[in-house]
Amino acid sequence: MDHVRFVPSPEQFAYTFGGAAPVMRITPPTVLTLWTEDAYGGRITSTSDVATRALDTLDLNPQTGPFWIDGAEPGDTLAIHLVDLTPARTWGASTLIPFFGGLTSVPVSPTLQDPLPERTYIYEYDSAAETLAFSAQGSDFELALPANPMLGTVGVAPGRREVRTSLVPDVFGGNMDTPEMAAGATCFLRVNVPGALFSLGDGHYRQGEGESCGTAVEGAMHVTVIVDLIKGGGPAWPRLETDTHLACIGSGRPLEEAWRAGQVEMITWLGELHGLDRIDAYQLLTQISLAPIANVVDTNYSSVTKIDKRLLPTVAVYDGIHAELRSAAASFGTITY
Amino acid sequence: MDHVRFVPSPEQFAYTFGGAAPVMRITPPTVLTLWTEDAYGGRITSTSDVATRALDTLDLNPQTGPFWIDGAEPGDTLAIHLVDLTPARTWGASTLIPFFGGLTSVPVSPTLQDPLPERTYIYEYDSAAETLAFSAQGSDFELALPANPMLGTVGVAPGRREVRTSLVPDVFGGNMDTPEMAAGATCFLRVNVPGALFSLGDGHYRQGEGESCGTAVEGAMHVTVIVDLIKGGGPAWPRLETDTHLACIGSGRPLEEAWRAGQVEMITWLGELHGLDRIDAYQLLTQISLAPIANVVDTNYSSVTKIDKRLLPTVAVYDGIHAELRSAAASFGTITY
Amino acid sequence: MDHVRFVPSPEQFAYTFGGAAPVMRITPPTVLTLWTEDAYGGRITSTSDVATRALDTLDLNPQTGPFWIDGAEPGDTLAIHLVDLTPARTWGASTLIPFFGGLTSVPVSPTLQDPLPERTYIYEYDSAAETLAFSAQGSDFELALPANPMLGTVGVAPGRREVRTSLVPDVFGGNMDTPEMAAGATCFLRVNVPGALFSLGDGHYRQGEGESCGTAVEGAMHVTVIVDLIKGGGPAWPRLETDTHLACIGSGRPLEEAWRAGQVEMITWLGELHGLDRIDAYQLLTQISLAPIANVVDTNYSSVTKIDKRLLPTVAVYDGIHAELRSAAASFGTITY
Amino acid sequence: MDHVRFVPSPEQFAYTFGGAAPVMRITPPTVLTLWTEDAYGGRITSTSDVATRALDTLDLNPQTGPFWIDGAEPGDTLAIHLVDLTPARTWGASTLIPFFGGLTSVPVSPTLQDPLPERTYIYEYDSAAETLAFSAQGSDFELALPANPMLGTVGVAPGRREVRTSLVPDVFGGNMDTPEMAAGATCFLRVNVPGALFSLGDGHYRQGEGESCGTAVEGAMHVTVIVDLIKGGGPAWPRLETDTHLACIGSGRPLEEAWRAGQVEMITWLGELHGLDRIDAYQLLTQISLAPIANVVDTNYSSVTKIDKRLLPTVAVYDGIHAELRSAAASFGTITY
Repeated sequence: MDHVRFVPSPEQFAYTFGGAAPVMRITPPTVLTLWTEDAYGGRITSTSDVATRALDTLDLNPQTGPFWIDGAEPGDTLAIHLVDLTPARTWGASTLIPFFGGLTSVPVSPTLQDPLPERTYIYEYDSAAETLAFSAQGSDFELALPANPMLGTVGVAPGRREVRTSLVPDVFGGNMDTPEMAAGATCFLRVNVPGALFSLGDGHYRQGEGESCGTAVEGAMHVTVIVDLIKGGGPAWPRLETDTHLACIGSGRPLEEAWRAGQVEMITWLGELHGLDRIDAYQLLTQISLAPIANVVDTNYSSVTKIDKRLLPTVAVYDGIHAELRSAAASFGTITY
Repeated sequence: MDHVRFVPSPEQFAYTFGGAAPVMRITPPTVLTLWTEDAYGGRITSTSDVATRALDTLDLNPQTGPFWIDGAEPGDTLAIHLVDLTPARTWGASTLIPFFGGLTSVPVSPTLQDPLPERTYIYEYDSAAETLAFSAQGSDFELALPANPMLGTVGVAPGRREVRTSLVPDVFGGNMDTPEMAAGATCFLRVNVPGALFSLGDGHYRQGEGESCGTAVEGAMHVTVIVDLIKGGGPAWPRLETDTHLACIGSGRPLEEAWRAGQVEMITWLGELHGLDRIDAYQLLTQISLAPIANVVDTNYSSVTKIDKRLLPTVAVYDGIHAELRSAAASFGTITY
Repeated sequence: MDHVRFVPSPEQFAYTFGGAAPVMRITPPTVLTLWTEDAYGGRITSTSDVATRALDTLDLNPQTGPFWIDGAEPGDTLAIHLVDLTPARTWGASTLIPFFGGLTSVPVSPTLQDPLPERTYIYEYDSAAETLAFSAQGSDFELALPANPMLGTVGVAPGRREVRTSLVPDVFGGNMDTPEMAAGATCFLRVNVPGALFSLGDGHYRQGEGESCGTAVEGAMHVTVIVDLIKGGGPAWPRLETDTHLACIGSGRPLEEAWRAGQVEMITWLGELHGLDRIDAYQLLTQISLAPIANVVDTNYSSVTKIDKRLLPTVAVYDGIHAELRSAAASFGTITY
Repeated sequence: MDHVRFVPSPEQFAYTFGGAAPVMRITPPTVLTLWTEDAYGGRITSTSDVATRALDTLDLNPQTGPFWIDGAEPGDTLAIHLVDLTPARTWGASTLIPFFGGLTSVPVSPTLQDPLPERTYIYEYDSAAETLAFSAQGSDFELALPANPMLGTVGVAPGRREVRTSLVPDVFGGNMDTPEMAAGATCFLRVNVPGALFSLGDGHYRQGEGESCGTAVEGAMHVTVIVDLIKGGGPAWPRLETDTHLACIGSGRPLEEAWRAGQVEMITWLGELHGLDRIDAYQLLTQISLAPIANVVDTNYSSVTKIDKRLLPTVAVYDGIHAELRSAAASFGTITY
C-alpha cells in the first residue's frame, strides 16, 4: 500500500467541494498522512483575536486536498478509514462569530436583534494528559476536558456540476461536524465525479453534539487515513462503520429532514445487510436507533442515525473492508508526524 | 414516607394533562407503586390487531393519575424519581398506524401519497433473559433485543388554563418519549397549577431514539416512583438527573426549536449550578453537550440536551435530592407487584 | 331570524377555546351583534403603556363567547358569515412584546440574544376617512393607512377533550390572524363538541400578511355575524368563502406544514365541488392557487390557500349558503352600535 | 442602447449559476431579446411523455446565458427590467415528477411511501384569447385559464466560489418561481463575481403561488429584458419593483426562514427609502406587508414580501431606474420574435 505524506502550502488549500484542481493523484488503497489547518485558516491565536477582526470570511474551513482517486467513477463508493488524528498544536480555539451559531439569529433566518458579544476561548492542549483547558471569562471557573479529536469535514465533489463551499454538509459529506468522525471510523461516500476529488479538514480537538455555538475546539491536525475504493454501491448519504456501530448521516433543513434522510439511509442499509423489507427495517430501527445530533449550525444541519452492531447478527459490511483497513492500520504501529 | 399502591380501573384513566379530576391526594414525599396500561388502551394483543381496526383514537395513551400533590403551587418544582419499571405483561406491541410516524406523511403535514401498509409486531418478553423477540414479517429474520423499560409519558397539568391530550409533549413534560426516562432517573417539572396534577403512563419495554415509526415496544408497566416537592425553582423545561448525567428536554416543531429549548434550559442550569454567565455556559456546552433525539413523531418533537456529570465539578443539584431519593429507593429492596 | 345583541362584562370574557361555559344558547341561524375587547384586554391605551408593564400575560386575547349552537354535533359544519366589523374606539394600538413576534427569538425557539426594545404605537382612527395614522418614533415619518377591519380570532372548541388558549390557531380555527377574515366572508368550521362553543375576538383595524411583529392595529370592535349550521360535512381545516374567493387556512409549524394542510384541504374541496380526482385537483391548484401567509408569529403559523372563483365553473358551495347569508345581511341595512 | 438578439443552440445552454462560460459580453444598458427552452429541456411534448421516461435529470432547467456584464463588480446592483414575455410555443406542459413537489415526500425529506402516479398535462395555448386549456384526466372537466407569462429563473453567479444548479433559488436569485417575475417588473440582484454572469430561463405560461406540484405550465418563451447596472448598493436578497409594488424575495428552509429573509430585506429597504429606523420599519411592515408564497417545492423555498407603493410616500427607488427602463421599453413599440 502506498503511503503518501502531504502538508499543503497556504496556497494549496481548497475552500470548496468540487471546483478545485486535485493536489495529487492516488491509487487506492493508499495511506495518506496529512496536515490540516484549522477552520479559521490559522487566524485566531489568542483570546483577543475575535472573529470580526481576525477572520477572512472567504477563507474559512480550508481543506487538505482534493485528491484524485484513480479509477473512481460516479456511483462508486469511496471508503476512508480514519487511522489517526493527533492535534498539531498545543492549543485549540473556539470563538463566537456574530450571527453564526445555534443560539443566535443567523443571516438565513434573520431577526432584528443585536448579535451576541464576541468572545474567543483558547484551550491549552495537554498532550500527556490528553486534556483541553477551559477557562470561563465571566467568572473564574476552570475545567480540564478530555480531548476527543475528530474531523468536521470529510467529503467528495458534489454531482450536478455543483461546487459547494467547505462550510456545507450534504449528500457528498462535507462539513457534517459529527464527533463520530474520529479515529477508528470508516466513512463511505458516494463518488459523484470521475476521480471523486476527496478532501478533508476542520480538525476539532473536541466537540459536543450539535456544535452549539458553531465552533468546536478548532485546531490544526495531523491526520492519517487509508483511502480505498469499492466499485459501485454508492450510498445516497454518508455512512460510517466503527468497531461498535453503524451510522448514517443525513443533512438538511429543518433538522427533521436531516434525521429522515439518515433514517431512510439506514433502512436501506439494513435491507442490504440483513434482507429486511423496508417496513420490517423501519420497525426494527424504531426500537434500536440511536440518534445523536451532529450540528445545528451549518448551512445544512446534520443528524446521525446509529446502531450498536451487537444488537444485530454479525455480517460482513462492504465485504469486511472496515475490519481489513482497521487491521492494516494496526500494522503501522505508532504514527509519527 | 407514605407508600401508596394504585391500579386504575378502566374508567379511572386520564387522557389529558389538565382537565381531569385527581384520582388521589398525596403528601410529598410519597412512594407510588402504580400500574399503567399501554398506549393502545390494551386493544392490540396480536399481529392481526392492526391500528385501523383495533384502535379507538379518542382513547389513546391512557394515563395513571392525575395525583394532587399537597402543597404544590405554580412555580414550584415537582421531583419524580423513577425507582423501578417492570413490564406487566409477557409481550409488548408495536404497530404502524396509518399516517402516523416519522417516515410517513401525517395529517398536520399531509401529502397526497397512500399510507404505508399496516403491520403489528408482537414482541414476546422473556423476563428471565430480559429480552424482547423481534420477528420480521417480510422475511424470516429474528432477533432478541435487550429490554430497556422506560416511560413515554410523565407530566403535570399545563398552565394558561389549557388541557392537552396525553399525546403531546411540551413544557409540562407529557409524551416526551425519551429512553432517558428509565429507572434511576429523577425528573424535575415546573408546577403550573395548584396540586400539580401529576400523571404518568405509556410504558415502553424498549424504544430507539426518535421512536421512528411512532410506537415503541408498548406494554403495560408496573411503576414505582417517589414524588417529592421542591418549593420554587420551577424550570422552564423538563430536567432530568441520573447517577451519570444531567439532561434537559425541549419539545416543539421544527426539531431545531426543540433542540434550542433544551440547550438554553441547560445553559440556565449550568449558570445555576456553576455560576457561569450565559456566554461561558454556551461555550462550554458547545464542547460537552450530548444531543440524542427523543421523538420525531409526536405533536411536538422532543430533543434531549445531556451532559456527563463526570466532566463537571461535583455540585449538589437541587440540594442533592436525586442522591437522597436514590438512596431511599435502594432501601426498599426488591419491589414486588 | 333571531337577532341577539351581547356586550360581555369583563368577567364574561373567555380566554380559551373549549373549557369555558357558554354565555348564551342560540338557535341557528341567528344574527349576533357583539362587542369585542382588544387582544391586550384593553390595557394598552398610550405609547407609554409598553408590554412588560401594561400586559397581564394570562389575560391576553379575550374572546366574546362562547355561544352554544343548538343542534350542533361533532362532524357538523358551522357557518359564520361576517356581516360587519366597525372599530369601536377612535384608536388602535400595536406594541412590540419582548420575545414575541416574527423577527425576534421566541421562548419556543430561544436564542441568547437580548430582546428588542419595547415600543407601543397608537394609531388614531379617522372614522370619516377610514384611515389609521402611523407615526414613526425614530424619525418624523407619518402616514395615513386605510383601515381594513378584520378578526384575528374565530373558533370553536377543539376535540380530543382539549382546551387551548385563545392565542392558538389550529384545526378548530382560533387565532388565525388572516386579513381574509373581514366583513363579507363566510367561515366554515368543523364542529368538534356538542353545541360547537363558538367564540370570536381579537379585532384588528388593519393587519399585513404575516403579522410580522406579532400585533396588528389591535382595537375593540363592533361585530355583526350570522351563525348558521350545516348538518355534517365538517371540513378538516377552516374554509372561507367570499364573493370573489374560496380559501382554506392551515396552521402548524414549520410554515410549510401549515401550507400543506391548506393545500390538501383545498384539493379535497375542489374534489367535492367539481368532481376532480386528487391528482387533477393538485395539478389545477398548482396553476391557480394564491398563497398569502396569514401569520408567522403565533403558537402555530397560518397559511391561506385561496382561489379566485372566476377561474372556476360556477357551482353552489354548501348549497349556496354564502350568497343566502350575504343577501340576508344586505337586508339589515346599516347596522348601528 | 444596444439591442442584442440571442437564441442559444442546444449546446449553449447553462445548467448552473456560476461555473459556465459567458455566451456573450454586453455593455449596460443593453436590450436582450432571447429565447428560453422550457425546464424539461423540451423533452416533454405530449401527455404520454411522463417524467421517468422523458426527462434527463442532469439537464433540467436550461438557462439562456450567462451574459458577462461589462463593469459589473461584486457589491454592485444588476437591474433587469422584464419588457416582454411571449409564449414561444402553442402549448405548455406540467408534469408530476415522482418524489418532487410540495405534496409528496422528497429525497431530502424522505418517507417510505410510494410515489404519486405520474401524469403529464398539456395545456394548449390560445394566443388570441391568451388562455391555456386545462383538461382533467380522471374526469371530463375542462377549463380555460388566462395565461400569465413569467420567468421561474433569473439569476447571477453566486459568491464564495460556489456553482449552484439552476434548480436552486438563493441570495443570487435563481429558481425563485414567483408569479411576480412577469413583464413590467424590474429585478435587482447583488453582483457577486466580476461580470455578474447573468442568465434567465424556466418560462411559465402560468403558475399559482407555491407551485404546488413542482411544475408550472412550463413552456419555451420569447423574452425581452433590459439589463442595466447600478454601481454599489447590492441588496442582500433579490428585490423587485413594478409600477404598483415593491417586493423582496427570500429563499431557504424551512419556509419561515425564507419569509424572515424577505421581511428583513424589506425593512432595510424601507430604511433606505424613507429613513425609518429598523423598529419603526418593522412596525409599519407589520401593518402593510403582503406575503405571497412563491414556491414550496425547490431546493430552497421562496417567499415574497410585497408592499403596495400607494401606501407609501412617493420616492425615487434606485434613482428612478424602474420608471426610466419602463419608459425606454415603451418606446420599443411591439416586439416581434
